[in-house]
Amino acid sequence: MSQETQEATSSCLKRTHYCGDLRLTDAGTTAQINGWVKRRRDHGGVIFVDLRDRTGITQVVFDPQIDEKAHALADAVRSEYVLNVSGTVRERGTVNPELDTGEIELAVDSLNILNTAKTPPFPVEDDIEVAEDIRMRYRFIDLRRPEMQKTLAMRHKAALAARNYMNEQGFLEIETPILMNSTPEGARDVLVPSRHYPGRFYALPQSPQQFKQILMMSGVDKYFQIARCFRDEDTRSDRQLEFTQLDIEMSFAGVDDVLEVTEGLMKRIFEEAGDIPVQTPFLRLPYHESMARFGNDKPDTRFGMELTDLSDVMADCDFQVCGQVKAIAAPGGANFSRKDIDDLTQFVATYRAKGLAWVKVTTEGFASGIVKFFTTEQLETAQERTGAKPGDIMFFVADKPKVVADALGNLRLHLGKKLNLIDETQYNFLWIVDYPLFEWNEDENRYEPFHHLFTGGTEETLPLLDTDPGKVQSQHYDLVCNGYEICSGSVRIHQWDIQQKVFEVLGITPEEVESRFGYFIDALAYGTPPHAGVAPGLDRIVMLMRNEENIREVIAFPKSQQGLCPLTHAPSVVTDTQLEELSIRVDAEL
Amino acid sequence: MSQETQEATSSCLKRTHYCGDLRLTDAGTTAQINGWVKRRRDHGGVIFVDLRDRTGITQVVFDPQIDEKAHALADAVRSEYVLNVSGTVRERGTVNPELDTGEIELAVDSLNILNTAKTPPFPVEDDIEVAEDIRMRYRFIDLRRPEMQKTLAMRHKAALAARNYMNEQGFLEIETPILMNSTPEGARDVLVPSRHYPGRFYALPQSPQQFKQILMMSGVDKYFQIARCFRDEDTRSDRQLEFTQLDIEMSFAGVDDVLEVTEGLMKRIFEEAGDIPVQTPFLRLPYHESMARFGNDKPDTRFGMELTDLSDVMADCDFQVCGQVKAIAAPGGANFSRKDIDDLTQFVATYRAKGLAWVKVTTEGFASGIVKFFTTEQLETAQERTGAKPGDIMFFVADKPKVVADALGNLRLHLGKKLNLIDETQYNFLWIVDYPLFEWNEDENRYEPFHHLFTGGTEETLPLLDTDPGKVQSQHYDLVCNGYEICSGSVRIHQWDIQQKVFEVLGITPEEVESRFGYFIDALAYGTPPHAGVAPGLDRIVMLMRNEENIREVIAFPKSQQGLCPLTHAPSVVTDTQLEELSIRVDAEL
Repeated sequence: MSQETQEATSSCLKRTHYCGDLRLTDAGTTAQINGWVKRRRDHGGVIFVDLRDRTGITQVVFDPQIDEKAHALADAVRSEYVLNVSGTVRERGTVNPELDTGEIELAVDSLNILNTAKTPPFPVEDDIEVAEDIRMRYRFIDLRRPEMQKTLAMRHKAALAARNYMNEQGFLEIETPILMNSTPEGARDVLVPSRHYPGRFYALPQSPQQFKQILMMSGVDKYFQIARCFRDEDTRSDRQLEFTQLDIEMSFAGVDDVLEVTEGLMKRIFEEAGDIPVQTPFLRLPYHESMARFGNDKPDTRFGMELTDLSDVMADCDFQVCGQVKAIAAPGGANFSRKDIDDLTQFVATYRAKGLAWVKVTTEGFASGIVKFFTTEQLETAQERTGAKPGDIMFFVADKPKVVADALGNLRLHLGKKLNLIDETQYNFLWIVDYPLFEWNEDENRYEPFHHLFTGGTEETLPLLDTDPGKVQSQHYDLVCNGYEICSGSVRIHQWDIQQKVFEVLGITPEEVESRFGYFIDALAYGTPPHAGVAPGLDRIVMLMRNEENIREVIAFPKSQQGLCPLTHAPSVVTDTQLEELSIRVDAEL
Repeated sequence: MSQETQEATSSCLKRTHYCGDLRLTDAGTTAQINGWVKRRRDHGGVIFVDLRDRTGITQVVFDPQIDEKAHALADAVRSEYVLNVSGTVRERGTVNPELDTGEIELAVDSLNILNTAKTPPFPVEDDIEVAEDIRMRYRFIDLRRPEMQKTLAMRHKAALAARNYMNEQGFLEIETPILMNSTPEGARDVLVPSRHYPGRFYALPQSPQQFKQILMMSGVDKYFQIARCFRDEDTRSDRQLEFTQLDIEMSFAGVDDVLEVTEGLMKRIFEEAGDIPVQTPFLRLPYHESMARFGNDKPDTRFGMELTDLSDVMADCDFQVCGQVKAIAAPGGANFSRKDIDDLTQFVATYRAKGLAWVKVTTEGFASGIVKFFTTEQLETAQERTGAKPGDIMFFVADKPKVVADALGNLRLHLGKKLNLIDETQYNFLWIVDYPLFEWNEDENRYEPFHHLFTGGTEETLPLLDTDPGKVQSQHYDLVCNGYEICSGSVRIHQWDIQQKVFEVLGITPEEVESRFGYFIDALAYGTPPHAGVAPGLDRIVMLMRNEENIREVIAFPKSQQGLCPLTHAPSVVTDTQLEELSIRVDAEL
């Protein structure tokens, strides 16, 4: 039928090996392989083709001396043509040490061109400079690149390792609905109009939070699911409209139980899929300590440069009148130029710091324009506490605690990268624990949940619900690795009366409770076991293992930041009939 | 805090055993278990509670002689309360042979009531008569029933067995988008309005068909995914708005390759998750033969009673002037009453058969009102071909082939059940193969795809695309088990020019091709390998293993036939702000 290509008869589809399989020990045997033409070159009347599949590359040789017909056919072959070749494996004249198969080549005696290919918009190679939008538009070519295949394989392995581990721990994977009810909390829901119920909408899950708790009420005891979740947020570089989480919930479990299971899960995934050793148990750092030492609750602990409080010694300094003074010491920063320091001052200004004081530590003493504002004693204390050595620079921010934390926490991260203090091969897992249950919203003069409405408090502090809710400590925990949050979780409220008190503290009326959480609160009253859970993000885990900073690199078919699929062009216009069936009208100029 | 219940401190959550674990060999040891109160009874001042979790039931005993406090607390305990108890395992007075733990009981010396429960709307027991809507509304109670737990566990095992098998076969699980483009073919799409692109919509996948083919173009070689799929059809009892399929696609593969992988997959799932032995390879039955012998292409081959063609001998009978005459012989049917036969006549009438002729075979000869229309020779031939024995009855339908097939095919199934001819423990897998590529739409006077647009034809018949498309045989295959289709698949078209010819045969203009399949057809031209795939339905597989006829029995949180979630009441009304953000308006009276 087809002019140039062969039909895919079963005989010409069979392969004896993948393109990455053959070795010198196979020399002298016959082999049949399939793959894509990575490169074709004509050399002294002989045609050499690098044939590629997901496992690697084999050099195949079309020599008219061996097979005239194959050689003649091979003349038409171009990049990305799909070939089936068979022939004899033989030792190569010049070994290519870059390839696992570099010691052999395949001398072809039969060629089937299984398909032709238009000239690809970019070559199928790693380390090439191609604009992301072109890569995404031709994702089917982009994914042929070895590094992308490696990512896909690693993601597959990570999910499988997770599933087998959870199964061994007695968890059942249970599918919860994708079409569910609009959830009252969190980000913006993705909505789906119902055809049967005009004017009513499903929502896609932001997470299966309610269903996983319902499963605990259902006696499932241990549940997990690798679940697709959806958030219609204005996409940041590490967020997608849809993402995947390892959703976990267990009954009769407290904080320790969940942390132990999660640590085992991380160990299994990172070791099995990423070949990255993980030491358990992980350090547990109280929230307040993390804020104090790192300025945030997702500290990158691969390097030091911790925030040091100097408020006690500098409270009455002339430097600045303020609530809090903190400092960090940047190793080797004594040679920062005026311009370097100006840039850093601009950097902290984006976090609302009104200034960035600095003092260089030299073998001759302290050097800075502001040295005169400090007593030597104060500077010595600063040096002692920050651990600054001669050659280092100390940076000071004085402001409200939140501004100090933001400014110095981010400056620390910025300098950590700038000064190459980070060991990229290291994976520092730690738990952040002991969060407060509520935070005070000063603008609206009321409490808000620090995490979510269903988070439980600790036994010791729960009595404060009635008297001093701000002091109730939650049973929430976050897992952090290298400065990224990889999961959040908590022991949930399982008692109907406690849940009611939490609603009261938050000022949610019984009517609102009924309309927003009716069925769920009702279910709580029918014998809910104590339960707790956690939900590591799969995308983030693969990003960490692959050292990627862009979530789109670890998703087969990601969307743009605006939610556009560059490959299929979704979303698209639909027909009037489709809209009529759904009883909706578009209210926009198209 | 809570009046009646204890806080879930870690000490009272720990268990040494599940409720199904303890045996007589544990007698004398101490144990701590958690669970729900299945039943509580007071007997001579001693309280007996059957404590249940997902693994089973243990009888726990509160005896004031052992612990007065626990006994006093236990007095308040009611059905579905959540308890933590510890005590000593001891031999039971009266063994309960129904329970695995029936030889022991736990003499409690410490009780924590972890939660109370309102009186459940129905008891947590199997084999109870509860209306489905009540069960679904209280799904969190319904799922506590042992049979439901068994289904959830089996579904989990089936998915895990599938994943490990596919992994061992070299397949990678790859997640494809849930928010994709509206597909041009098949059922009605579930649509999702885009916020960033007013007036444009995503669609949820009816299946990841296009993406899995794109993954083959991406060099993935072997892909699978346990994928959620969505179809907005008017729900039949075996369909849900969302369902789950084991989506599989492989490159450089022909029919045999896919069938072999699928057979191995079925064997693995049924044996590992269902404990059901499966013999491979499966029988392959050509489509036309299945239609001829069973009247449909999803035959239940667990019993005979096949359709027998008598058109040749009865073509000129007086019985009826018609296109085709076929018969089946029902064993033991000679004792059917007049009323029985009238009912069967009504039954076939629903399949548009104008009548149902019958002849009883007795030791004295043939008996029927219509015997006189037939020659003895004709009846003897009928008896010989149908294999009817004395005591049986032969049924005849004469009509157009489609009506004969429908009427007798369904009559056969109906009688198979009615006469108890079906061995429920048997699992008869078979492939239906050799489908035509197109079928002629008589109303619209044009060809339609028999399955879908991307299905490939056989090498031998593909040249007929130009001359006689109706004769082109497809490379489609269906897997059938016990009368149910469990998967469909095909070798796909991988060549751009063949795909164009198929569009031409179907009368799809280049403009339509561009607007409906633009990106996909474009991608075909960049080096698409030959590829083929299949997609077994997970819901159906679990239904078969569990002998369930209702898909809602094998889904944790199913929706009603109208797409309503009886538990959460989704879909629901959303706020005007939400609709404004999506630039849509509801066009219905609410």
